[in-house]
Amino acid sequence: MKLENIRIVMIGTTHPGNVGAAARAMLNMGIERLTLVEPKCPIGEIAYARASGANHVLDERETHADLAAAVADCSLVIGTTARRRSLAWPEVDPGAMAERIFELDDSSQVAMVFGREHSGLSNDELQLCNLMVCIPTNPQFSSLNVAAAIQVMCYEIYRGQLSCPEEVAVQGDDIAASSGELEGYFDHLQRVLRDLRFANPRQPSLIMQRLRRLYLRARLSRNEVNILRGILSAVEKPRD
Amino acid sequence: MKLENIRIVMIGTTHPGNVGAAARAMLNMGIERLTLVEPKCPIGEIAYARASGANHVLDERETHADLAAAVADCSLVIGTTARRRSLAWPEVDPGAMAERIFELDDSSQVAMVFGREHSGLSNDELQLCNLMVCIPTNPQFSSLNVAAAIQVMCYEIYRGQLSCPEEVAVQGDDIAASSGELEGYFDHLQRVLRDLRFANPRQPSLIMQRLRRLYLRARLSRNEVNILRGILSAVEKPRD
Repeated sequence: MKLENIRIVMIGTTHPGNVGAAARAMLNMGIERLTLVEPKCPIGEIAYARASGANHVLDERETHADLAAAVADCSLVIGTTARRRSLAWPEVDPGAMAERIFELDDSSQVAMVFGREHSGLSNDELQLCNLMVCIPTNPQFSSLNVAAAIQVMCYEIYRGQLSCPEEVAVQGDDIAASSGELEGYFDHLQRVLRDLRFANPRQPSLIMQRLRRLYLRARLSRNEVNILRGILSAVEKPRD
Repeated sequence: MKLENIRIVMIGTTHPGNVGAAARAMLNMGIERLTLVEPKCPIGEIAYARASGANHVLDERETHADLAAAVADCSLVIGTTARRRSLAWPEVDPGAMAERIFELDDSSQVAMVFGREHSGLSNDELQLCNLMVCIPTNPQFSSLNVAAAIQVMCYEIYRGQLSCPEEVAVQGDDIAASSGELEGYFDHLQRVLRDLRFANPRQPSLIMQRLRRLYLRARLSRNEVNILRGILSAVEKPRD
């Protein structure tokens, strides 16, 4: 599944700012195909201002008279809702939705459908959806702005297609210190603390234990060990 | 960690619509505490219209003159960025950020900081952050609207608390140090380094930056801050 096979469908949108904000949110997440169904507002200056540079998403939008036409070639049509429905519709959270999308092959087309700002999707429109996705929200204030909902869904899709590592690798001169370098630092630290007569008299080893724990947890780089040992050497120097 | 311990901090915001949209995005995800630092726009009709009913979030906002004051009582200060920085700052994705938040005990305060619409966070502001979080985006169009970024982050937090155990026990004396306590330590450290004449002559601030980065990454406990300051006091004492 490629991002270019995914389209965002907005039905009956009344605020051009929301269309512009949606275009920006989509492009931020690498999704460029916008389809409007029965838009109730002009797509002009206000929309382009909020798109903040995502102009081609607006320029190349498609417009359809009804949802059936807008999703006719799609093998997965995802409806979105902020509230759980009484109907036992197959409903998943956004993370599970992204997983479903990326199980599809590269020739499948996917539509993610967002209903009207106030009334959502009609029953006829719901019948066209294979899957309902629900963004979990505060039950006391559950109605997301449509562009905000599009941002969250596109974020989940973009994240789904990344297999990005959780933490960024340390770069450049920040090579991790070796165990030997760390032990050299701890020996040095212990010597300086002894010279300073800094210790818990009842449990002399406790302070070092706690400091070891702290520095081991921080996963020091070689460069940081050098700075810390430089400070210790400065402390050891005879003062003027 | 409870949602009421989490605040959203917006710095130097120029568009009242973004503040209103942020309030709505926050409340959708159960987060109600909004802090503005040096806002550049009035919070009036435009903001309330975009808040779409999240009025009390705007009514009860706090305003501060600088970030340090806004986060002084926080034990975790999270900076947000859409781009990866050259410095190897500890940087995680939004999901990993939510995990870090929910590892904290119920008494910890957390700030999630969003920089100016165009220029982001200043270097001084970055220095106050323990953790940087990066929303993965399309490298060709990476700049999210600030309210959209707040929506994604708050969504991750809300989702995180849905899947997390209700209470994390505070372990013994290992209460996380607050931002104010950490700044007290950094001031003390800087004073001692100056007395020791320990600095990189070409870039005097670089050493402190690197040390800050190390200690912020380690997420010091209050007890560890006390040990480290005890060592500094011992260094400062006149020698025999």
